[in-house]
Amino acid sequence: MKDLNMTLPTYRDVIEAHERIAPYIHRTPVLTSTYFDDLTGAQLFFKCENLQKAGAFKVRGASNAVFGLDDEAAKRGVATHSSGNHALSLSYAAGRRGIPCHVVMPRTAPDAKKAAVRGYGGVITECEPCTSSREEVFARVHAETGADFVHPYNDPRVIAGQGTCSRELMEQTDGLDAVIAPIGGGGMVSGTCLWMSHAAPETAIYAAEPEQADDAYRSFKAGHIIADDAPQTVADGLKVPLKENTWHFVQNHVTDILTASEDEIVAAMKLAWQRMKIVLEPSSAVPLATILKNPGVFAGKRVGVIITGGNVDMDRLPWT
Amino acid sequence: MKDLNMTLPTYRDVIEAHERIAPYIHRTPVLTSTYFDDLTGAQLFFKCENLQKAGAFKVRGASNAVFGLDDEAAKRGVATHSSGNHALSLSYAAGRRGIPCHVVMPRTAPDAKKAAVRGYGGVITECEPCTSSREEVFARVHAETGADFVHPYNDPRVIAGQGTCSRELMEQTDGLDAVIAPIGGGGMVSGTCLWMSHAAPETAIYAAEPEQADDAYRSFKAGHIIADDAPQTVADGLKVPLKENTWHFVQNHVTDILTASEDEIVAAMKLAWQRMKIVLEPSSAVPLATILKNPGVFAGKRVGVIITGGNVDMDRLPWT
Repeated sequence: MKDLNMTLPTYRDVIEAHERIAPYIHRTPVLTSTYFDDLTGAQLFFKCENLQKAGAFKVRGASNAVFGLDDEAAKRGVATHSSGNHALSLSYAAGRRGIPCHVVMPRTAPDAKKAAVRGYGGVITECEPCTSSREEVFARVHAETGADFVHPYNDPRVIAGQGTCSRELMEQTDGLDAVIAPIGGGGMVSGTCLWMSHAAPETAIYAAEPEQADDAYRSFKAGHIIADDAPQTVADGLKVPLKENTWHFVQNHVTDILTASEDEIVAAMKLAWQRMKIVLEPSSAVPLATILKNPGVFAGKRVGVIITGGNVDMDRLPWT
Repeated sequence: MKDLNMTLPTYRDVIEAHERIAPYIHRTPVLTSTYFDDLTGAQLFFKCENLQKAGAFKVRGASNAVFGLDDEAAKRGVATHSSGNHALSLSYAAGRRGIPCHVVMPRTAPDAKKAAVRGYGGVITECEPCTSSREEVFARVHAETGADFVHPYNDPRVIAGQGTCSRELMEQTDGLDAVIAPIGGGGMVSGTCLWMSHAAPETAIYAAEPEQADDAYRSFKAGHIIADDAPQTVADGLKVPLKENTWHFVQNHVTDILTASEDEIVAAMKLAWQRMKIVLEPSSAVPLATILKNPGVFAGKRVGVIITGGNVDMDRLPWT
């Protein structure tokens, strides 16, 4: 545990991260909805990271890593493996600093995602869509470039960066009884735990997960990390397993993990589009789906709901 | 003109309206988009009335009319004819005040719209989908109830209410070279003219209209109102003609009217959903479509873009 604690970020890292990344991120709005308040009996405050730069909260952690590098390290650039929002966000942040960004992506990733990464200046190296190929290709890219590895969620700089979202949410609301965020690898939930355990330790922290990729739920109940291999869910940002740093925060600070079915996730997503007029991706609809499913947990409470992203293929909506 | 001037609202009416309606409306956020700035060469400030109560700016004018009634008149309620956002908004406002709201709607209006009006407490009387039936049925409802008629856009109280949107937009930005809004009957454009001609007379005011329902464009060029009978366009909020009060503002304060084709409107709508992560209805995409079509008009300028509403049938998207 001592070695581990050496790498864990503190709330001071969140404050420093916030100052560092402020010029490169949006202070996203917090929206309310009478409709959903009536429906749930709770008072919901939606923190809209779907309106964030590059369409997701991940730009917070990525920017913190990129802009925290000293000039020498920055010259060699950053590298990561991701087929999703972290790839976009790291490319965006590196582009803003004007340094190289190397991304290892499965060759099967959607062309639109690859085009978006390249649009921000990211250099893609393709791998086969399996863990062994990804690790092998990434090791080679890493060795050849000397670029700084920014893990999508286990990196302490990334966790501290994600914590800035909860810091803003607390500034934008007048106290909360609970906060809920989706959980995949646990980067956002860890950042939330990191900030809230310092700034509002009485606020309950819930994580929301698809039933079909409920490894964090089972880890939480079992008391140790359970990693699934390639679960299938419409919430494609939530397929990855916890790692030691994010597990630390989940284990120590999360109140409970709630799950929702695929149908419940898609229904909540569509309803949010209809009634709140915002585009949120399936992963971001999981918290709302669990609130609608568990009204007793949230009724009468002031609840912060983190809408993590809005990157959706408009030609392949899950309800059409 | 003297009789007409008697009914025209002034900028003081906008300030009074703002105070009156503040408890019942959202102060909607202004969003920016690096993507669209790069694409257009302009600096765009999107005033998001799609995130407004009842999903559209119309709640501003409707609330101003409803909450401006004295208690005696309020008892008899309000009445209107509309198959769209004004029906929703007037029902919402009347519901908040606890007074009756009578809406004459064509029997062919979508069930979802009727359900939403009833959800807010509105009482619907159906008419045939033609002007003669609508006028006949509305005259009867009006006579029977003694309710106060709130016209969707020609009513001075409604125009003053819509003006509060531009007042907020100016407070939320640091000066604008131009403002652009969609034009149908001209309520939003008139409110914009009303406020901007007082608060920022140097700011150019553009109106945006579908090519297939370009009666305001042709009126503007001809110098008198031209009303079309039932034009067909995907931008279904923009089919109605100008009336004397809105024509006054258009004629005297609008810099130019720009038009876009159906394909251009749908493409701009889809692109805004993809890149800005907000749901806007086809009518609200017309300004963006005309900016993309006329970059020379807006490049290098700070432009306020009023996103008027976000009421869309998610099962019938125009690009699927």
